[in-house]
Amino acid sequence: MPVVSSSDRPCSSASRVTGETDVHAAKWIKLVRLDYVDPTGAARTWDAVRRTTTTKEAEADAVCVFATLRGGDAKEDEVLLVRQFRPACGTETIELPAGLIDDGEKAETSALRELHEECGYVGRVTNVTPAVVLSPGLSDESVVLVTVDVDLDAAENANPSQRLEGSEFITVIRCPKKDLLRTLDEFSAQGIKVFAGLYTLAWALENAKNLQ
Amino acid sequence: MPVVSSSDRPCSSASRVTGETDVHAAKWIKLVRLDYVDPTGAARTWDAVRRTTTTKEAEADAVCVFATLRGGDAKEDEVLLVRQFRPACGTETIELPAGLIDDGEKAETSALRELHEECGYVGRVTNVTPAVVLSPGLSDESVVLVTVDVDLDAAENANPSQRLEGSEFITVIRCPKKDLLRTLDEFSAQGIKVFAGLYTLAWALENAKNLQ
Repeated sequence: MPVVSSSDRPCSSASRVTGETDVHAAKWIKLVRLDYVDPTGAARTWDAVRRTTTTKEAEADAVCVFATLRGGDAKEDEVLLVRQFRPACGTETIELPAGLIDDGEKAETSALRELHEECGYVGRVTNVTPAVVLSPGLSDESVVLVTVDVDLDAAENANPSQRLEGSEFITVIRCPKKDLLRTLDEFSAQGIKVFAGLYTLAWALENAKNLQ
Repeated sequence: MPVVSSSDRPCSSASRVTGETDVHAAKWIKLVRLDYVDPTGAARTWDAVRRTTTTKEAEADAVCVFATLRGGDAKEDEVLLVRQFRPACGTETIELPAGLIDDGEKAETSALRELHEECGYVGRVTNVTPAVVLSPGLSDESVVLVTVDVDLDAAENANPSQRLEGSEFITVIRCPKKDLLRTLDEFSAQGIKVFAGLYTLAWALENAKNLQ
């Protein structure tokens, strides 16, 4: 079990947010000003970002799908990646298939829906993680990682066809799992930005032997 | 090598941002409105967030440090984690030691500095990743993962002491590497939010055997 190092500073568990004020709202995101108290009781402020689509009931804002393709024309296990232009980054990115969780939707349902819409495949959920936060200094934006198996021998996966919205232009990439980190490094070297949660996953898969 | 699935949609590599307008700036972050063209040539807009501290020269906004402790009183390899209250999340979080890269600073230098300030340890860099993006739909915020070895037998690590700013209250956690995912799941179950890039790393380390 973990050991907590001793420190002469108070533990942050006594901190809490005491107020949130909208500073400026755009259609999808807004800037807020938070008032909070630190563990000594001192009042402080913090700038943060909120998605305007976040609902209190949802377990997370979004899902990411770690989908493994097996059978069919896949000679070995493959991972599904998506390549698309991301205006916020000013470049194309390589990400896991992902999307916002609809109002009232379960993460599993959202993951299978997004996988089908973005990549055309039908899959089966094998694992769901807790909600984890993407950029904790900036926002409370959270995501659930859903692991999915895709059977390429299933009739429904014989002719995968994307169902994209008019503004979406997504290229589906099937990457052999053993080549994942090298492939992400090659895209990075071309100036195509890789999603952090995907990169650290690939890095750990590749380095697991040395790291354990 | 990866296979690209055929699609009837144009590839997004023809997209580009044509304009960026500040919508509202707070001290540390700002809302911007982006104009871009999609691969068909149609003009579109996107709401995004920028850190006001981002400089064009820096390789990334921030570093995350994956530090392994060996020797000393560590019976087995341990990973350094930090626990702190994050106003933007409204809760405490579990993250890797991390921080913004100072103007003109190299990622390696930043990583060793942050590790020393936040946790009190002196380490040696063993790997540096490309810059990867934390939340590509929302912002261009990027981070470099720096891997560091910490020798607990070194004299400089005999009495680790944090150098925190007045507003920082960070608890250092030494977690046996083999218990990492279970520990993160236990914190999650308590409502303490885990950083996505750390969670997927731990998940892949734990599942590497099944996944390869």
